[in-house]
Amino acid sequence: MDAQLINPFINATINVISTMAAIKPEVGAPSLKKGKATWGVVTGMIGLAGYQASGNMILSFDSGSILKIVSSMLMEEFTEVDDQVVDAVGELTNMISGGAKKELNEIGFFFEMASPIVVTGQGVEIKQLTEHPVITVPFKLEQGSFVLDASLQKGE
Amino acid sequence: MDAQLINPFINATINVISTMAAIKPEVGAPSLKKGKATWGVVTGMIGLAGYQASGNMILSFDSGSILKIVSSMLMEEFTEVDDQVVDAVGELTNMISGGAKKELNEIGFFFEMASPIVVTGQGVEIKQLTEHPVITVPFKLEQGSFVLDASLQKGE
Repeated sequence: MDAQLINPFINATINVISTMAAIKPEVGAPSLKKGKATWGVVTGMIGLAGYQASGNMILSFDSGSILKIVSSMLMEEFTEVDDQVVDAVGELTNMISGGAKKELNEIGFFFEMASPIVVTGQGVEIKQLTEHPVITVPFKLEQGSFVLDASLQKGE
Repeated sequence: MDAQLINPFINATINVISTMAAIKPEVGAPSLKKGKATWGVVTGMIGLAGYQASGNMILSFDSGSILKIVSSMLMEEFTEVDDQVVDAVGELTNMISGGAKKELNEIGFFFEMASPIVVTGQGVEIKQLTEHPVITVPFKLEQGSFVLDASLQKGE
């Protein structure tokens, strides 16, 4: 993945969470993802595919960060990752990839989005099978942290 | 998802596993997926997206079925779901969705594929966030079973 392509994903993450939950997450330095990660308690993922490019966007949250974000979004106190939180992670995944897609379209980079999938469970390991680099970006808020992983590769 | 669209996925599953592992899995009756499932020990998923359609294909294996399939594929005895098995699940996911895509293209139904993602872990729950029906198809072999879930929806 071309490093400049990560910025639209970072921008969309901050925009969507600021708008939906009135929280501005602090963004850390992007790096190349290495190996197979053990992830947060709830992970939203969405496939990106088109003639021009394919890949995935994955957002993985610890319970502190997602409970705070969803409590703010839905204006109701959530204390565990229940069905409503899972659905909210799906919505956030969709909105954030949609925002990135819009910004990437504007610079002439086209693809479509699959439907979001949300994974929950303890000790889950998630591996993207791609020969191309995956870029990982940490985000922090007062109550916890989450990670954005994105891979997007131009087709042949 | 239009019920007739499931057949290319079923055909590709049988073709790929027969070809790669010399095992012909027995296919059960397709049904509409309800609720959030608890899954097998290893799950391959791939986003499907295009102007015409979007969705996902998910294949979830118990350890008996995947260890038998990968042992046959790689002509080596596997007794646990290690990195090689995870990579093989990614390959199978890619090949099976590629086979379904080819057959669907031939009947005028176009989309592209994202990169496969493989999830491992105990007690993992996986939910597709879509308002459209997801079709689930059970497969059985002597050593275990696996499930194919597919959703593919025409765009607006």
